Amino acid sequence: MAELKNRRWLLAARPQGIIKESDFKWTEAPVAPLKDGQVLMRNLAFSFDPTQRGWMSMDTYIPAIPLGQPMRAGAVGQIVESKRNGFAKGDLVQGLLGWEDYTTSEAEGTFGIQKLAPGTDPLMALSLLGTTGLTAYFGTISVGQVKAGDTFVVSGAAGATGSVAGMIAKVKGCRVIGIAGGRAKCDWLTGEAGFDGAIDYKNEDVGAALSKLCPKGIDVYFDNVGGEILDLALARISNGARVVLCGAISQYNEAQGVAARPPRNYFNLIFHGARMEGFLVFHFARQYPQAIAELAKWHSEGKVKNKLDLQLGLENAPKTIIRLFTGANFGKQLLKIGDPQ
Amino acid sequence: MAELKNRRWLLAARPQGIIKESDFKWTEAPVAPLKDGQVLMRNLAFSFDPTQRGWMSMDTYIPAIPLGQPMRAGAVGQIVESKRNGFAKGDLVQGLLGWEDYTTSEAEGTFGIQKLAPGTDPLMALSLLGTTGLTAYFGTISVGQVKAGDTFVVSGAAGATGSVAGMIAKVKGCRVIGIAGGRAKCDWLTGEAGFDGAIDYKNEDVGAALSKLCPKGIDVYFDNVGGEILDLALARISNGARVVLCGAISQYNEAQGVAARPPRNYFNLIFHGARMEGFLVFHFARQYPQAIAELAKWHSEGKVKNKLDLQLGLENAPKTIIRLFTGANFGKQLLKIGDPQ
Repeated sequence: MAELKNRRWLLAARPQGIIKESDFKWTEAPVAPLKDGQVLMRNLAFSFDPTQRGWMSMDTYIPAIPLGQPMRAGAVGQIVESKRNGFAKGDLVQGLLGWEDYTTSEAEGTFGIQKLAPGTDPLMALSLLGTTGLTAYFGTISVGQVKAGDTFVVSGAAGATGSVAGMIAKVKGCRVIGIAGGRAKCDWLTGEAGFDGAIDYKNEDVGAALSKLCPKGIDVYFDNVGGEILDLALARISNGARVVLCGAISQYNEAQGVAARPPRNYFNLIFHGARMEGFLVFHFARQYPQAIAELAKWHSEGKVKNKLDLQLGLENAPKTIIRLFTGANFGKQLLKIGDPQ
Repeated sequence: MAELKNRRWLLAARPQGIIKESDFKWTEAPVAPLKDGQVLMRNLAFSFDPTQRGWMSMDTYIPAIPLGQPMRAGAVGQIVESKRNGFAKGDLVQGLLGWEDYTTSEAEGTFGIQKLAPGTDPLMALSLLGTTGLTAYFGTISVGQVKAGDTFVVSGAAGATGSVAGMIAKVKGCRVIGIAGGRAKCDWLTGEAGFDGAIDYKNEDVGAALSKLCPKGIDVYFDNVGGEILDLALARISNGARVVLCGAISQYNEAQGVAARPPRNYFNLIFHGARMEGFLVFHFARQYPQAIAELAKWHSEGKVKNKLDLQLGLENAPKTIIRLFTGANFGKQLLKIGDPQ
């Protein structure tokens, strides 16, 4: 095989405040020869997820990305060379890869690579039928324990996970209110996404709007943002409410693993016999096949839509992650750098 | 019936910071003639509970105590006159009464009065076999979901609820660590109460001690104090941990319904797929009889001890509630003002 040139974005600095383009460094280097047990993938598309800021900053549920190594991302690639049993040239694979043209890997399992069925759409595998959709599914159903008639409120509602969470709650018979930034996102929520109400946190008094739209209180609050909005929701929970902690994107930019604006209203969990529960999607790995089948069915029936915010070109990876953390994205943030062959 | 003189402590001011004696005002007044539907009780003993500061401050799960009205307390009294069906002179009753010699009531139910079996020990009814013991029982078993082998940590461990919670967790086969203030309390925990370990928060580095005593992390944390200790525990939870929010006495003195020092480490609930859940004991009212029977059995077997901190005399009520909020009490704080006749 001719020597391949690899373009790569390395992690140059741990983020301070908002992620900056200078946190990454562009390099070009030849791909090293493959060793036994390894596979070489040409990367096709990258997912952008709030949890990546944690990976850039520190050890969390997985070790921090080492400085000088490629930025880690959920991604889909196609094998161009394999010295590992069970993987062949042409196979589509998904896993935690790097912002680079080619990734060499020998890791399987939760944080390694998994094979995808032939013909899988890489963008679908990185959105509704991947971590994003699964996170919404288990957060809403397993952690949130939604039931028909519940008032379900979701923040980051126009984001990848939030929008799917709300649409799943609709499938389950909830009254669904979304909180998002800007009129266009809110119009999309109450229009195409079928939400019962939307609150524009950039232009509305969120507390007053929640009180008006949730007169009987909030039964399930699916939190993607943390901070003040989490507190406004906690102030309005009903008896026995479930607060699903999916993320806290408003907090990631400011703090190193602790909340800069922690939930002062957590006492309300006592007064209302309510719970606040976190989760990581891979805790539910054994139930993925059933969940993917159900999500695919709802998608084919038009009940759950898969809105993508698609950027193009490896050179734009840093700009694309910044879109996510400034709330510029509208739908699941993806970056495509190639097509399967 | 001859006119009875009633000595009363009225709520004079909403507490600012720590409760002060001047928040109460002593008065004496004749007891008003009884109306149809009312009962008149001579009060025998009062319970002192962290939740009383909430009642003094604002509307919570029940309306705030009106200024100028008697201070509200869980109490046991004996009926001296009844104009209400189902209640007779001599009956022992329990309920939310007032800091006064005589209380007139016409309310039944959760926040009213309930009859006690003849011969009931008023002090037992206000401690292990009353709200205190029931709170420990449902917090540990129903909310905490303790199971054999769990590492169980409780703060306010020498207090009324905390000590019983820890002893119940021992009955259920947990490894139990208590956090309390002072060597004497810690010695009592690891001695008479049978805890596996104790941490003196006044003289030890609580975080370091928790790390040492809980090498596999904390499976159930029963929180009575809130604040920094809650954060130190959250930093050390295991996967799937349950944080039981029973109270937050460190926070009640400073804030009006919001936490002055909220839990910054709540992100750990996400990383560990863990939950933080609050409760009020009366949510479990239907299960009281079974719980009381089990607590009484464990008490008779010597497995769960009932440590009381007994003060005497109505005139000492304000001093006694201050004992609770300064941590001076050791065991369940009670005040006795009379005996059944």
